[in-house]
Amino acid sequence: MDGFFNKIVQPGDSGDNDVMKMNAIKQMEHFARTQPGAISLSQGIPFLNSDEALRKAAIEALEQGKVDAYSDPQGIKELRHEIASDLQANGMDYSSEEIIVTAGAIEALSATLLTILNETKNEVIIPTPTYSAYFKVVQVAKGRAVPIKLHEDRGWRLDINELEKNISDKTAVILICNPNNPTGNIYSKDQLDQLCELAKKYNLVLILDEVYKNMVFEQGHWYVPCENSNNKNYIVRIVSFSKDFALSGWRVGYLHTSQVMVDRILPVHDALINCTPVISQYAAIEAIRQSKRIFENNIQTYTKNRDIMVSYLDKLNGYLDYSMPQGSYFFFPKFKQPTDESKFCEQLFEEQKVTVVPGDDFGPGGENHLRICFGRSEEAVKEGMERLAKFVLNV
Amino acid sequence: MDGFFNKIVQPGDSGDNDVMKMNAIKQMEHFARTQPGAISLSQGIPFLNSDEALRKAAIEALEQGKVDAYSDPQGIKELRHEIASDLQANGMDYSSEEIIVTAGAIEALSATLLTILNETKNEVIIPTPTYSAYFKVVQVAKGRAVPIKLHEDRGWRLDINELEKNISDKTAVILICNPNNPTGNIYSKDQLDQLCELAKKYNLVLILDEVYKNMVFEQGHWYVPCENSNNKNYIVRIVSFSKDFALSGWRVGYLHTSQVMVDRILPVHDALINCTPVISQYAAIEAIRQSKRIFENNIQTYTKNRDIMVSYLDKLNGYLDYSMPQGSYFFFPKFKQPTDESKFCEQLFEEQKVTVVPGDDFGPGGENHLRICFGRSEEAVKEGMERLAKFVLNV
Repeated sequence: MDGFFNKIVQPGDSGDNDVMKMNAIKQMEHFARTQPGAISLSQGIPFLNSDEALRKAAIEALEQGKVDAYSDPQGIKELRHEIASDLQANGMDYSSEEIIVTAGAIEALSATLLTILNETKNEVIIPTPTYSAYFKVVQVAKGRAVPIKLHEDRGWRLDINELEKNISDKTAVILICNPNNPTGNIYSKDQLDQLCELAKKYNLVLILDEVYKNMVFEQGHWYVPCENSNNKNYIVRIVSFSKDFALSGWRVGYLHTSQVMVDRILPVHDALINCTPVISQYAAIEAIRQSKRIFENNIQTYTKNRDIMVSYLDKLNGYLDYSMPQGSYFFFPKFKQPTDESKFCEQLFEEQKVTVVPGDDFGPGGENHLRICFGRSEEAVKEGMERLAKFVLNV
Repeated sequence: MDGFFNKIVQPGDSGDNDVMKMNAIKQMEHFARTQPGAISLSQGIPFLNSDEALRKAAIEALEQGKVDAYSDPQGIKELRHEIASDLQANGMDYSSEEIIVTAGAIEALSATLLTILNETKNEVIIPTPTYSAYFKVVQVAKGRAVPIKLHEDRGWRLDINELEKNISDKTAVILICNPNNPTGNIYSKDQLDQLCELAKKYNLVLILDEVYKNMVFEQGHWYVPCENSNNKNYIVRIVSFSKDFALSGWRVGYLHTSQVMVDRILPVHDALINCTPVISQYAAIEAIRQSKRIFENNIQTYTKNRDIMVSYLDKLNGYLDYSMPQGSYFFFPKFKQPTDESKFCEQLFEEQKVTVVPGDDFGPGGENHLRICFGRSEEAVKEGMERLAKFVLNV
């Protein structure tokens, strides 16, 4: 093929013709989508349907002609008020002006990193293994990811001293996923306080991605450092409606931070997307109003699915070690014997038509693991795990 | 205010603490939104409602549970097939694999520039005055906009030789809006062919933003260089459903280009947004099926509004010169006397509560002009122009 395109140097590329590729989550999901009869335990897509009340609210707004025109780039006022009240009720003192409604968590993260990173400050410290899309977003923002391995042998614990040693003159951001995808660990209050202290000490931004915040199986551990208003200037907190309300296809989430930071991120958000889809914003208003009921149902459903998956993983304990996730809807088991997990995933798909994600997609420390999602239907979890077990036991 | 945020250097910032701001279109629209009784002739938001058939299709997909989960990042197949057929019917030979469904035109542009621009090739040549959001997107992608003034005295004609002289070793992209916002000019076949020749000669990408392609008042002039398949490797064409189908709040559009380029832009699009809102993709499928009827209605409506606006502009011909737009729903009149158009717009809003956009927002050549949108309702156009006339004649 001639022409220009095959010569283009890609973002984040140092000129050696490394072309950015889709992460393995998306590649596996693509396999599942295009293969009849395949079962996906790969991408973190909730199997639940959106709630009837949310749908009704969306349809009503549509029929009233409220969703056709662009909204305020920051998000419709009614939704931002609802979010601010919800934050207040959870001990976080943020006004509706300190919120930007985004097209899901990923757009919130993109807009934030594209705002913050620059040539002199381009490093993003990321405890790993973690959500693989982060590395892509950092690359798009022409930044450099600095991975810090979580300690699997200590329940995926973060070593704060180790993290501090990796802070350089170029560090701009510490980015954590809490509860963490794919390991399911939750950061303790102690650790989060220490991260905030580091942010203050070194003038960094702590980005907290809490898309799985309502899939916490062990209550009592949960803490959000935004409850301490002294931290406001140092934290961008990202929340999504995708997982909590099964609205992943609707693309709606938000970030909240200081007014100064909102004023800086907003024009970048505006340049990326103009505004979040308006019909989704109306669904989100109703979502917050219905959240208590929906979250209770979610936890029941996912706990049941988790336990089904455990029963299968226990049968495979000659081959795989696993720890119970404190939050999120993922298991991240480790092969007892060194295994090429990418090859394993490919062969598993070829032979059994079930998709899971190879662990090395999630960064250093993820090698020799698999990510398996139990956010799918009970039938899919059972059938998928049956097939996985058959494959492993025949290997 | 202390803390980190007021010290952050912004994207595209050379370190002199220039913080990126919202463009004047958004600032004026924000005034109009927050002032009861205000009339907006500022942001290009179609006043028409989305068509009943589109709404029905969206609701149906919603009720069938098709819109809750993420779609394929590239866009749902059915929509890409529909788009490919539509392109074929318009003489453009693109397959459904050569299309990415995006969250509106702006996300298509962001994803494309974030893919293409890099440290060694970071310049984007932009004929001006043009859509002001382009400058923001270039800034977010850490590029440099190189404006080339259109010649107002020759019907906003682009001088290709002048453009060629501005191509440097760092030029990566030529970006044009056709029909052009805010001037309403259409690029001729001759000029578009010359631009393609330049793209080939210098290995550049020509980005064609055609969001107003179906608001062309003078048929016969219209030409899309994608009809010539030799150009495929050099063009990224961007199309939106926002204006044509009054779906601006739904955030759906697409780009089409070569397979190689799709493979490169797709992971960036995925990192920015994951996928385009799925309910909007279902509305878009029906939109294409209904397009003939809807476009005919649009043209009738906007022609009527245009003529109303002309009648007012003619009354103001002692103060403002204007040319008839060949396409788009904007007038871009020029003050006969040098006037600070930003101050004019502010005072107009203060005294008469009507918003229009100061011309300098659109880049070099825009100074001393106003952009006035006739994509609003007949009543808004009449009342807004009444107020503008009152303000001008009292000045």
